[in-house]
Amino acid sequence: MMIDFYELTMANGYFLSDKKDETVYFDVFFRKNPDQGGYSLFVGLEEVINYIKELSFTKKEVDFLRSKNVLSEEFLKYLETFRFNGDIYSFEEGEIVYPNVPIMTVKANIIEAQLIETFLLQAINHQTLIATKASKIKNASKDKIVIEMGARRAHGFTSALNGSKAAYIGGIDATSNVLADQLYGVPSGGTMAHSWVQSFDTEYEAFKAYAELYPGNATLLVDTYNTLKSGVPNAIKVIKEVLLDNKESSYAIRIDSGDLAYLSKKAREMLDASGLEKCKIVVSNALDENLITTLLSQNAPIDIFGVGERLITAKSDPVFGAVYKIVANEKEGEITPIIKISDNPIKITNPDYKKVYRVFNKEGLAIADLLALHDETIDENKPLVLFDPVHTWKRKELEDYKIKEMQIPIFKEGKLVYNIPNLKERKEFAKKNLSNLMNEVKRLHNPHKYYVDLTQELWDLKDQMIKTKRSV
Amino acid sequence: MMIDFYELTMANGYFLSDKKDETVYFDVFFRKNPDQGGYSLFVGLEEVINYIKELSFTKKEVDFLRSKNVLSEEFLKYLETFRFNGDIYSFEEGEIVYPNVPIMTVKANIIEAQLIETFLLQAINHQTLIATKASKIKNASKDKIVIEMGARRAHGFTSALNGSKAAYIGGIDATSNVLADQLYGVPSGGTMAHSWVQSFDTEYEAFKAYAELYPGNATLLVDTYNTLKSGVPNAIKVIKEVLLDNKESSYAIRIDSGDLAYLSKKAREMLDASGLEKCKIVVSNALDENLITTLLSQNAPIDIFGVGERLITAKSDPVFGAVYKIVANEKEGEITPIIKISDNPIKITNPDYKKVYRVFNKEGLAIADLLALHDETIDENKPLVLFDPVHTWKRKELEDYKIKEMQIPIFKEGKLVYNIPNLKERKEFAKKNLSNLMNEVKRLHNPHKYYVDLTQELWDLKDQMIKTKRSV
Repeated sequence: MMIDFYELTMANGYFLSDKKDETVYFDVFFRKNPDQGGYSLFVGLEEVINYIKELSFTKKEVDFLRSKNVLSEEFLKYLETFRFNGDIYSFEEGEIVYPNVPIMTVKANIIEAQLIETFLLQAINHQTLIATKASKIKNASKDKIVIEMGARRAHGFTSALNGSKAAYIGGIDATSNVLADQLYGVPSGGTMAHSWVQSFDTEYEAFKAYAELYPGNATLLVDTYNTLKSGVPNAIKVIKEVLLDNKESSYAIRIDSGDLAYLSKKAREMLDASGLEKCKIVVSNALDENLITTLLSQNAPIDIFGVGERLITAKSDPVFGAVYKIVANEKEGEITPIIKISDNPIKITNPDYKKVYRVFNKEGLAIADLLALHDETIDENKPLVLFDPVHTWKRKELEDYKIKEMQIPIFKEGKLVYNIPNLKERKEFAKKNLSNLMNEVKRLHNPHKYYVDLTQELWDLKDQMIKTKRSV
Repeated sequence: MMIDFYELTMANGYFLSDKKDETVYFDVFFRKNPDQGGYSLFVGLEEVINYIKELSFTKKEVDFLRSKNVLSEEFLKYLETFRFNGDIYSFEEGEIVYPNVPIMTVKANIIEAQLIETFLLQAINHQTLIATKASKIKNASKDKIVIEMGARRAHGFTSALNGSKAAYIGGIDATSNVLADQLYGVPSGGTMAHSWVQSFDTEYEAFKAYAELYPGNATLLVDTYNTLKSGVPNAIKVIKEVLLDNKESSYAIRIDSGDLAYLSKKAREMLDASGLEKCKIVVSNALDENLITTLLSQNAPIDIFGVGERLITAKSDPVFGAVYKIVANEKEGEITPIIKISDNPIKITNPDYKKVYRVFNKEGLAIADLLALHDETIDENKPLVLFDPVHTWKRKELEDYKIKEMQIPIFKEGKLVYNIPNLKERKEFAKKNLSNLMNEVKRLHNPHKYYVDLTQELWDLKDQMIKTKRSV
C-alpha cells in the first residue's frame, strides 16, 4: 500500500480497457548526479527484490480501496489475487551508475508494471542517494575509519535503518544503529554521550567508571566542560591510571564540538607528551565530505570520523531523482518503442527496450556507457564508434576495448532468478568499482563528465520519433 | 532496537553502578528553526506515545545483544523485562515551538531515560521538520489546495508514511500516498502519469478514455508532448465532448514541466476562450514555498499545487536538530540541577527541571515563552518582567497578560494519561495556532525573532552554575 493513488486509477483504467493484457517496458533512470558530482553508486535492489517477492493485497487493503469509491469492483477482485509475474533486469548493488542510463528495466503486464512504480523508485532513490554520499565521505576520509551515527536525525525509521545499510555498502565502516546490525549485519558500536559525563559529579569520575567497565573500547568524550583544560587532562589521567598497563585495552578521546582542527592538534600534542601515542582521536559534529577534506588538508591528526545528520539525510542534496518511464509496449510479440517529448530536452526519454553496455579501455578503466537497442549485438573484434548524442560531430573510434552488459536478470516471469550477494560482498564490490573509477570522476568539484552514448541505431530511432511526435 | 549502541553501553554502566536507581530529568529541545525561519511546528508525539507503550526487548533481541560481548549478563537479563516506568511531559502536536524551549521533558530512572533517546529524537526531528515545511508551503499557497506527492523521493517507507501525516497536520490538504490514508486517514487521491498518456496511440485517446472512466475527478496531464500545442487543445476537446454536459463531472488540467507561470496563464486563456472557466489548473514540478510565492506573485492562475520532493525531504534544510539533554537528577526526593558547558555559548544548556510558560498579550497574541524553575509560580495578577537572557538590560514589564503552561502530562509512572486528539483535530489545532501567529514570525525571510526568556531565578541559577563549572 506504499503506492501513489494514481497508480491505482491508471491500473484500473488499463484493466477495464483493451490494454488489460498488454506487455510494456519501463526504464528506471535518473537525470543528474547528486551534488553536481560525477557518479552515483547504485543500492536499493535488495529492497526491490523483497518487495516484489511479497507483493500482494490483503482483503483488508482491498476493502479499504473499495471504500474510496473510485475503482471498479472487477479490478478490486483482481487485486485480491494480484502478484507480479513480469521480468526485472537490473544493475547489481554496488555498481557505479550515470545519468540517463537505465539502472533497471521492468518488462511486465501494463497493470503489474504500473503498480510497482512508487516503491521501486522510493527504495532506489533513498538508498542510492545515501550510498553515493557515503562513498564521497569515505573517499574524502582517505584511510581513516568512518562511523555512521545519524539515526536521531534520520527521516524516520527506515531512513535510519536502510540508510545505515546503504552507507555501509557505500564505504562507511560501522554504525551506531543497533537494528542495522541485528537485521543486516552492519557492525555497530558506541561508547558515551554527554549525559554520561554529566550524570557523575566530576568528569574524572565519569571517565574512570567508563574505562573500568569497558577497557577494550574506551572512547572518552572530552568536550562536556572544556576540551583542553578539563576533558583531555582528565582523559590522560584515567588512561594512565586504568588502561595503560592493560594490554587488551583500546582507548580514544572524542571531540564533538568546537574547532576540530585546532582541538585535535592540541589534544594530540598533550596525549603524545604524556606518552599516549596509542590513544586515537575521534571527531564528530555535522561532518561531511567537504569538512573532512578541509580537516585533513589542515593535517588535523584525526583517526576516526563520526558522521551523522549530513550523511543520513544527504543534507547537501537530499533528493535523488530516479524516474520510471515507459519506453515500449509489446503486442503479439512485436515491440513498439515509446517516447516522452518535452520542451525541456533533458526530459525527453530514450525510447525502446534497450541493452546497457559499459565500455572499458585496454587498461580496464570504464570510459563510457553505451545504450543499444535490445536486439543489437556489439562485436568486440570490430572497431566501436562512440559519439556524443547532442554534439554528434564529437566522435571517436575504439579499437582495443571490452564491453560488459550491465543489466542482469533478477526476476523472470515473476520468479526470482538472482542470488543477491551478502552485504560484505556488496560492500567489497562497491569498493572495487569505486577504486576502478578515475579520480577525475570522483572529485567533489567540477568532476569529469562520464560519457553516456547511444548506438547509431538507437540515436536514429530517437531522432525519428522526436520529429514525428512534434509534427503531429 | 532502533537505538544507538551508546545508549546501551551507558545504560549497562548505570545498571552496574550505584546510579542504578537514580531518577533523572532530560529535556528535548532544538537550537534553531529550519531555513532560518521564525518558528517550528511540533509533530511527533503520537509516534513517541506508540513507541513508549510498546517498548520492550524480545528474547531474540537480547540474544543478539549478548552476542556482541559488550554488555553484562545482569543487564541483559534486566532488558528482558524492561519497560518504561517514568513520566513524560510534552507540548501537544500542532503547537508552535521555538529554539531552546523544552518541547518534552522525561523524568525517569536513568537507564529508562537513556534508552529512549534515539527513537524520541528521530520521531520528533523528522515529523516536526516536515510539518514546519508543510506549514510554510500552505501559507505561501494562500487559499489554494496543496497536495503532497513525494513518496517516490522520500527517504524510505516511514519517511513517506509519517512525512505525509506530518505534512497533513502542517496544513497540506491531501496526499498521493494510499497507505497514509489507510493507516492515518490523510485523504488520498491521484489521477494519471505520463505513462498513461504514452500508453495510448494518441494523447486525445488517452484523455478521452480517462474522462469517460473518471468523470468525477478527471485531471488531464497536458505536458507529455507539447503543453500548449497539443496537451491543452486535446484536453479542451475531451472536456467538451465527455464532461461538459455531465453535471457531476469535475475536471482539471495538470502541468508538470516548463515555465509554470507562462504555461498556466496561456492555458487559462485557452480554457476560458473555450468556455471552460470551471476547469481547474494543477501544477507540479519541484515546488516549495519560495517557488509558490513567486508563481502567485506573477498572478499565475493556479488552483492546486502538487508538492513532492522538496516537501517530503525538506530539501532546503533537511535536518531538524532536536537534542536530548540531561538537566537534573533526583536523589531521595531532592532535585539537583545539571548543566552542559561548551566553548560555544549556544551549546550551553538551561539547567534544572523546568516549567514552560507561553505569555500572551491582552490581544491574545503569544509574545514570549518563559522558562521557569519547576517550583516557581507566576501570579497573573502581578506584573511580569521579561528580559533578554544575553543582553539582560533589554527588559520590559507586562501588566495585562495571560500565561499558559505548555507541557502537559503524557505518561505518569509509565502509564499513558493523555488521549491524543484525532488527526483532523490536530490539524485544526495547528491551523489555529498558525493563524494566531504574527505574520512577522511566519515570513520566509528575516522573520521577527520570538522571545524565549528565563525567569530571574532560573537565570541566576544558570549563571551561577556556568561560573562554578568553568572555574573547576
